[in-house]
Amino acid sequence: MTDDTFFIPRLAIIGVGLIGGSLALALRDAGAVGEVVGVGRGLANLEEALELGIVDRITQDARAGVEGADVVFLATPVSTLGAMAAKIMPALKPGAVITDGGSVKESVITEIEPLLRADVHFVPGHPIAGTEKSGASAAFPTLYRKRRCILTPTARTADAALALVRRMWQTAGSEVVVMNVDKHDRILGAISHLPHMVAYSLVNAVGSYDRYEENILEYSAGGFRDFTRIASSDPTMWRDIALTNRTALIEMMERFEKFFAELKEDVRQGEADKLYDFFLRSKELRDNIL
Amino acid sequence: MTDDTFFIPRLAIIGVGLIGGSLALALRDAGAVGEVVGVGRGLANLEEALELGIVDRITQDARAGVEGADVVFLATPVSTLGAMAAKIMPALKPGAVITDGGSVKESVITEIEPLLRADVHFVPGHPIAGTEKSGASAAFPTLYRKRRCILTPTARTADAALALVRRMWQTAGSEVVVMNVDKHDRILGAISHLPHMVAYSLVNAVGSYDRYEENILEYSAGGFRDFTRIASSDPTMWRDIALTNRTALIEMMERFEKFFAELKEDVRQGEADKLYDFFLRSKELRDNIL
Repeated sequence: MTDDTFFIPRLAIIGVGLIGGSLALALRDAGAVGEVVGVGRGLANLEEALELGIVDRITQDARAGVEGADVVFLATPVSTLGAMAAKIMPALKPGAVITDGGSVKESVITEIEPLLRADVHFVPGHPIAGTEKSGASAAFPTLYRKRRCILTPTARTADAALALVRRMWQTAGSEVVVMNVDKHDRILGAISHLPHMVAYSLVNAVGSYDRYEENILEYSAGGFRDFTRIASSDPTMWRDIALTNRTALIEMMERFEKFFAELKEDVRQGEADKLYDFFLRSKELRDNIL
Repeated sequence: MTDDTFFIPRLAIIGVGLIGGSLALALRDAGAVGEVVGVGRGLANLEEALELGIVDRITQDARAGVEGADVVFLATPVSTLGAMAAKIMPALKPGAVITDGGSVKESVITEIEPLLRADVHFVPGHPIAGTEKSGASAAFPTLYRKRRCILTPTARTADAALALVRRMWQTAGSEVVVMNVDKHDRILGAISHLPHMVAYSLVNAVGSYDRYEENILEYSAGGFRDFTRIASSDPTMWRDIALTNRTALIEMMERFEKFFAELKEDVRQGEADKLYDFFLRSKELRDNIL
């Protein structure tokens, strides 16, 4: 899938985990990148990334890592993006494009935009892909294939920078969608952040049920395991998402609570028809997802 | 996996769907059954079961179907088990053993025990296995392999009948656990019934979110699809489970609500450490499930 016309001479990946590493691998596979520099805090992970051929060289010094980079991909947890942008800003070459993979966009934009040099571009982004695994060893080149990637440009975002980042994600296999920040944060709050809060709560509620001396989770068949897989996700990442998308998340949590409380009331009252309709509607909505 | 010493000359399966059909296939594979009679309401499904070799003959007449059967497996929705037991009771041969696969046990026992003839045995059971599919075409012989099957004998259950049903499920590949009825209903309320209520509510809450003109579920990556798979389960079956295991289910729903409300409050207050601890505990509990 070589793209002869799209090429990033030097790409710096800050945070070479599942998200950052998979982008590097996808662009390499497409022949769309020259040198890839891996930047991170943990030396062991960086060395693994180097050994796996995800990056060409590594450094723990972010400023040194971004020197001369045409594109810088910030792929560290959302809570660290502002400080990282501040740190690298003086070292960026004129015309450099920063983009990120944060799951929440408004808070990231609020932190990064005021820091931007006039000759540096920022394109806020969010590739909607992932697994519950993390680290360089979890990265693979097809992670983004046929996945949506949302870009949320602001009034400050230059068209050329947006076009470049769009092209980059398309080259990695994604379908790129451009939307405003508020819409992104609400949609992700609904389809991703809320389900994680639900899964975390469910596992805690069931797993701490101590009426019996044995671990009742051992009775669960595949259903519970599959249903709660996302409760295995990285706690730091999800703490940051919960904190940074608070408004949209609280709104969705309250919406969910309302549905759940009504269902509970229907169970309590033995409302057979209402229960059937509720379950059927849910089944139909679920079966309509591709 | 032939078991030379265990053999059921005639087995009647009432409700030849995923659960009933898979038991028949497993026992056939083990050479542990002579004739299998399939009983059901829907002729098309029965004919499919016959064609697929799940059963040897079929009938829509439950009384005719159980004649001469050594073991009768009731595998219809829990709400129908009492009426079905009443219907077949006069036609059972002396010494026949009835067992069932209902996901809720107390309500089934309450309905069936008073109907029992003195010369007929009943062993309440629940194989913990399933998929979100249903019907004879969904049945497969390894469904029960390495799954737990819970039996909940009562004061009336004869030891020999319990031993036979235990052997039957072991022959189908299950690990059989015997426990009291109340414990079964509470454990299943926690690990199975509650998660279904949560999944149904989540899909309804998110799927009916109509702030935008597009279907936001289309933005979901694999996570939402996997997480909500159980919301595809049969609405009739789950209506019946919700109605028949009401007490244990309401208790668990309230327990979940408490955890969820506390999490929401921590999100609202920005309690970073509490959020991290909550997510980490959940991840640890989840990762400990085999």
